[in-house]
Amino acid sequence: MNLRIPGPIPVPNNILEAMAKPMINHRGPEFAELLNRVTDGLKQVFQTNNDLYIFTASGTGVMEAAIVNTLSPGDNVLSASVGVFGDRFAEIASTYGAKVEKLKFAEGKGVDPNLIRESLVKNPNIKAVLVVHNETSTGVTNPLPEIAKIVKTEFNKLLLVDGISSVGSIPVQTDFLGCDVVATASQKGWMLPPGLAFLSFSSEAWKAHKVSKMPKFYFDIANYEKYLKIGQPPFTPALSVMYSLDIALRQILDEGIENVFERHFDIAEATRNGIKNIGLELFADKSVASNTVTSVKIPDNIDAKLLMSTMRKKYNIVLAGGQKELSGKIFRIGHLGLCTHQEIEDVIESLKKSLPNCKLAS
Amino acid sequence: MNLRIPGPIPVPNNILEAMAKPMINHRGPEFAELLNRVTDGLKQVFQTNNDLYIFTASGTGVMEAAIVNTLSPGDNVLSASVGVFGDRFAEIASTYGAKVEKLKFAEGKGVDPNLIRESLVKNPNIKAVLVVHNETSTGVTNPLPEIAKIVKTEFNKLLLVDGISSVGSIPVQTDFLGCDVVATASQKGWMLPPGLAFLSFSSEAWKAHKVSKMPKFYFDIANYEKYLKIGQPPFTPALSVMYSLDIALRQILDEGIENVFERHFDIAEATRNGIKNIGLELFADKSVASNTVTSVKIPDNIDAKLLMSTMRKKYNIVLAGGQKELSGKIFRIGHLGLCTHQEIEDVIESLKKSLPNCKLAS
Repeated sequence: MNLRIPGPIPVPNNILEAMAKPMINHRGPEFAELLNRVTDGLKQVFQTNNDLYIFTASGTGVMEAAIVNTLSPGDNVLSASVGVFGDRFAEIASTYGAKVEKLKFAEGKGVDPNLIRESLVKNPNIKAVLVVHNETSTGVTNPLPEIAKIVKTEFNKLLLVDGISSVGSIPVQTDFLGCDVVATASQKGWMLPPGLAFLSFSSEAWKAHKVSKMPKFYFDIANYEKYLKIGQPPFTPALSVMYSLDIALRQILDEGIENVFERHFDIAEATRNGIKNIGLELFADKSVASNTVTSVKIPDNIDAKLLMSTMRKKYNIVLAGGQKELSGKIFRIGHLGLCTHQEIEDVIESLKKSLPNCKLAS
Repeated sequence: MNLRIPGPIPVPNNILEAMAKPMINHRGPEFAELLNRVTDGLKQVFQTNNDLYIFTASGTGVMEAAIVNTLSPGDNVLSASVGVFGDRFAEIASTYGAKVEKLKFAEGKGVDPNLIRESLVKNPNIKAVLVVHNETSTGVTNPLPEIAKIVKTEFNKLLLVDGISSVGSIPVQTDFLGCDVVATASQKGWMLPPGLAFLSFSSEAWKAHKVSKMPKFYFDIANYEKYLKIGQPPFTPALSVMYSLDIALRQILDEGIENVFERHFDIAEATRNGIKNIGLELFADKSVASNTVTSVKIPDNIDAKLLMSTMRKKYNIVLAGGQKELSGKIFRIGHLGLCTHQEIEDVIESLKKSLPNCKLAS
């Protein structure tokens, strides 16, 4: 099967095999070595010297961790959203009692950093800005460097970044940009099965943690910090994914993260060009098109459901449909992790063959 | 390695191999079948017709889920604790703002149901009772049927049960006893790697959920219920553990859960007898000794650390030490899941050989 959704992704065989390694004591010396080694490797990919913690959870879990570890009910928060996951980030903050001011941008567009500046000027009480770096639902990569410059350099607010489908695939210079919290999850560019999520946490974030009054236990990084010092997790972790993470990190660092980013750009370009070559239209603005997931407009005369099921049943290719309001309007091609040009050519070729047979009755 | 801690446990090879299966779309038809099948199987082992949800988390995650989905800040809650995990259950409730009345019993003893009755008589405002069925830190199984009779039949309060190291190994008749929420995790009697946790949720619990004001998002069962209806998880799950769960459940149900319980009793009896035969003393009261983990007193003249490391380095047997106040005072032998008599004999034999070489300098 050619699984071309934006996560879970096809896991390379050598990494997948490590999932079947026998269990060890998560409070023993062997685990401590593993934990310290992968924490160090993750920091290199995050490009950070900040603290970094590993959670057994999906990406949404660490989005919640980003919020509950830094904020208090009643805190003013600015959310800049371009899609489903941006909205989710805001919803989590609201759920825990933050006052969320929402900047919502059209789907397919990126965040306009100038509007963030405007909001921060207008409302000096804003404590933190929430932004999804790579919005999987629309295939958009927001201009994180420009956003960070405003949020951190100009206004010195907390910057909480959902880097779930970017870190490890698209450059995220955590320390250089000053991102206070960056969250990501294993089933994305890390070439791993789902089960683990990772969070970097700055000293500014720790200051916020000290006064944070949102309730937390499972996601309280104080628990993770306390145990990391003795080479342990506070709670039993998804060990098997840790084994695979160890191998995947070595592979990423051996390849060199700049090369990994370049490879993601190449395959994304090939995808975008292939889509245009068969006469389809890209959904995301060219300037913000993501290198991990490509969103494609479904022509008016095409039956979206039929197209997805034809691709799956006839060509063994699994694509992602549109989410919420975009259901039936776009489809998405995931190309995170190790994705070959051949796999993308197969997608394009199969789409070309499928489209004429997926027309709506007129 | 003979991993004899109370989780993670040695996973049988055929179950472990399934961990290395390729990824699939967690929003596709193949996953829907898997999700529905394992949810149904889990209900059989839980002996429940209540709703049942699967979380990507450790056991602590679903302890938190049990609390935040049923309670509100200010709610009066009774915690009956006999050890570390009982205390943790209470701490989570306090963290989220519940007023927790604590009934604390001596380590090695079980909960006295009569004292629960007394507390419920004295404080009619108590809304829920928190109890850990099998306290891993002391090797004690609390008398859940007697507790349930009081909490449910006599007082009709919410009964939230941490069944993490009992469900699937020690009888938990969820519906017959009327347990409103039962939580457990994959790395215990389920014969699985860690990564997933399971929660049953009664109609009474749903009524409580409706008025619950504790904030929640990742652990909000409303999200899980909404998506389960369309055969999906709300958030990307630890797929690999789901594959293994599918196989483990078939194995458990084929063996018959009554036989599984009997097998756990047998191996626990063999462990307890073996320990007594080499002149060591059991820590837990005989009447409440657990069938999944056996706690053993460390004789005054024995160096606990040296004993653990001798067992590990010389005999390749990993035992669990005592936690918190019991550190250095007890050790624990896990025998959940598939544990053979030979494995327990090896533990006993190796302990017998190690003890004379682990004496404290006098």
